[in-house]
Amino acid sequence: MLIVKKFGGSSVANKERIFNVARRCIEEYRSGKDVVVVLSAMGDTTDELIAMAEDINPRAKKREMDMLLTTGEQVSAALMAMAMQALDVPAVSLNAFQVMMHSTSRYGNARFKRVETERILHELDSRKIVIVTGFQGVNKYDDVTTLGRGGSDTTAVALAAALHADRCEIYTDVDGVFTADPRVVKNARKLDEVTYDEMLELASLGAKVLHNRSVEMAKKYNVELVVRSSLNYSEGTVVREGADMEKLLVTGVAADKNTARISAIGVLDKPGIAFNIFDTLAKNNINVDIILQSVGREGTKDISFTVAGDDMEHAIEILEKNKKRLTIKEVSCNPNVAKLSVVGAGMMSNPGVAAKMFEALYNSRVNINMISTSEIRITVLVDEKDIDKAMNAVHDGFAMGE
Amino acid sequence: MLIVKKFGGSSVANKERIFNVARRCIEEYRSGKDVVVVLSAMGDTTDELIAMAEDINPRAKKREMDMLLTTGEQVSAALMAMAMQALDVPAVSLNAFQVMMHSTSRYGNARFKRVETERILHELDSRKIVIVTGFQGVNKYDDVTTLGRGGSDTTAVALAAALHADRCEIYTDVDGVFTADPRVVKNARKLDEVTYDEMLELASLGAKVLHNRSVEMAKKYNVELVVRSSLNYSEGTVVREGADMEKLLVTGVAADKNTARISAIGVLDKPGIAFNIFDTLAKNNINVDIILQSVGREGTKDISFTVAGDDMEHAIEILEKNKKRLTIKEVSCNPNVAKLSVVGAGMMSNPGVAAKMFEALYNSRVNINMISTSEIRITVLVDEKDIDKAMNAVHDGFAMGE
Repeated sequence: MLIVKKFGGSSVANKERIFNVARRCIEEYRSGKDVVVVLSAMGDTTDELIAMAEDINPRAKKREMDMLLTTGEQVSAALMAMAMQALDVPAVSLNAFQVMMHSTSRYGNARFKRVETERILHELDSRKIVIVTGFQGVNKYDDVTTLGRGGSDTTAVALAAALHADRCEIYTDVDGVFTADPRVVKNARKLDEVTYDEMLELASLGAKVLHNRSVEMAKKYNVELVVRSSLNYSEGTVVREGADMEKLLVTGVAADKNTARISAIGVLDKPGIAFNIFDTLAKNNINVDIILQSVGREGTKDISFTVAGDDMEHAIEILEKNKKRLTIKEVSCNPNVAKLSVVGAGMMSNPGVAAKMFEALYNSRVNINMISTSEIRITVLVDEKDIDKAMNAVHDGFAMGE
Repeated sequence: MLIVKKFGGSSVANKERIFNVARRCIEEYRSGKDVVVVLSAMGDTTDELIAMAEDINPRAKKREMDMLLTTGEQVSAALMAMAMQALDVPAVSLNAFQVMMHSTSRYGNARFKRVETERILHELDSRKIVIVTGFQGVNKYDDVTTLGRGGSDTTAVALAAALHADRCEIYTDVDGVFTADPRVVKNARKLDEVTYDEMLELASLGAKVLHNRSVEMAKKYNVELVVRSSLNYSEGTVVREGADMEKLLVTGVAADKNTARISAIGVLDKPGIAFNIFDTLAKNNINVDIILQSVGREGTKDISFTVAGDDMEHAIEILEKNKKRLTIKEVSCNPNVAKLSVVGAGMMSNPGVAAKMFEALYNSRVNINMISTSEIRITVLVDEKDIDKAMNAVHDGFAMGE
């Protein structure tokens, strides 16, 4: 039986925590399993390295940035191997060159193309625990790349897929995936299982337990993912394709406060204008989320949409610069909004979910600004001040805590 | 014209110094030369990494130690590339994997076997400054190795040899190689040129400007070495094979206080005993330097020898443990001794050097304990308290300051 275990930076932030992780992996190893451990850089190492780089060159080439940042995981992997050796267990640390984690060439945001298994299998055959640096790859130029933040999850899933691991455990500081953020919703409940699609919707909605790309990859290669706590032995949440999921109408509710609403007012009501607006934004790397179009006065219309809060100013700037071409009379915005979503594979075959959600919000006197839906998700835009109340209302409305 | 420049850890210890080195390399680059820069880890990085490792596992495997330590040079190389880019010069950092610096497999003390040049030449062809991580190699298992302390000098020479560089400049915090330690001998003079052999003798005698192995390699591949200061533009000292060296009788005088004298007293005077003693020490990795054998009483002899001061206790321990087998009656030691050496290619054809040295010491009332010579070196063991006086006396005796 082969297990891939991934631990984040806070789990290896100091000597004590490194030994905690080492002991946990050794228990599994001693029970006869093959263990591959994927690690992030220790604590704030990555941020410290970025600060050093920015001090020297705020516009440093991403290739050099990746050369710099990949040292972080190599340090934590080497120290982990030393800790396991101190506990009398053979262990070996491997970086992306040694494993040969082939990636695309895009520095700072690479994707895995192919992962070789020969070296890891060789080390496992000699009964070593294998520790692999997360977050990094090697491109066709023999240069190191990084996968972007959260990339260590993807490393773990890519290795689990390539090695045909029995499971891939992602360790975090929470017990698993919850029906809602436990800091906001008191009776939020830990879920035993979610589907890949549910996890994808939840992840993209700010339930920051798993990196989205890692869930996509797990789905593609059918890797059984487990999200669990590094602080205790609770079972965690299993992410997998499952038939008996549909008994649950909705799985969870998630909020995202990093949202802003932008309105382009008085746009000419003729074909192609809306396309031009969103095309212009897309070319500037601005992701648009919910879109609402309404009829305005005198042959015009108003187009509203949401963007990530961080992108708001940039988006406004672009629209103002192209005002004439895009026939926009006026640009307005509202940063004080938040998205609330319910997610559940069960809603595919159950048309009453939206109505039930709206009812719960109405009963709590929460006003809905915009609505967007996918097959397994319903998202509404509400005022930011209402978001906690709204989350509790919807969580209770669907009796998710029970 | 191709120049390899090596800068040590103190030359890249902070942002300001990194930019100093960057500017210095850029001047050379702008004059049309191809520039390869070899860097050590920043300031105390290596010591800090060692301390982290020792905190986790005082007997960590050397393989993991090398995984850990090699991150230090990768950080300084990446930051240097960023600094050069900030000054609008194209630069690229390369680690041992990317260059392919093939080494023997011995972790912590590897030697280069072969250095590939394809990647570096490719980058130089596109007019980049190439920055290479010093001190590290890759062995046949695809594992990273380190060359031991001072190994970055060797990296620079190995690259200069492989690339057929026109010169290899080793930057340090002194102006070059001196006739004696300027802190001890006031009128010590900077040498314009020394031969490889002289440099080897001086290096092994505590004139810590160049790593011995790098000088050996430079000699083997006839690489023109230059030792010069990173703090000014003084010409430095050129190390090369040269015919007109012989006009100088002696080149320099060096002292080594890290020395201890050990005596094995009352050893049986029969064949093989001395061999057994030194064989036992060698098998315990203790280097023995000067050896003196004297006749003792009743068919015994006394064998005295010097070891590095750090090895004294270990050597005594070993002798005591094997006392019976080695027929030693008593082991005594003296840590308060020092070696003084004069070095010069000219003494090969000039028999009066030893006499002149002894005369100078006699005139200063410095007692000589032991004597050892090579073709181009004479070493005497004196009391540690006399070493500065002795150094000045010999320096003056040969008029080295003139």
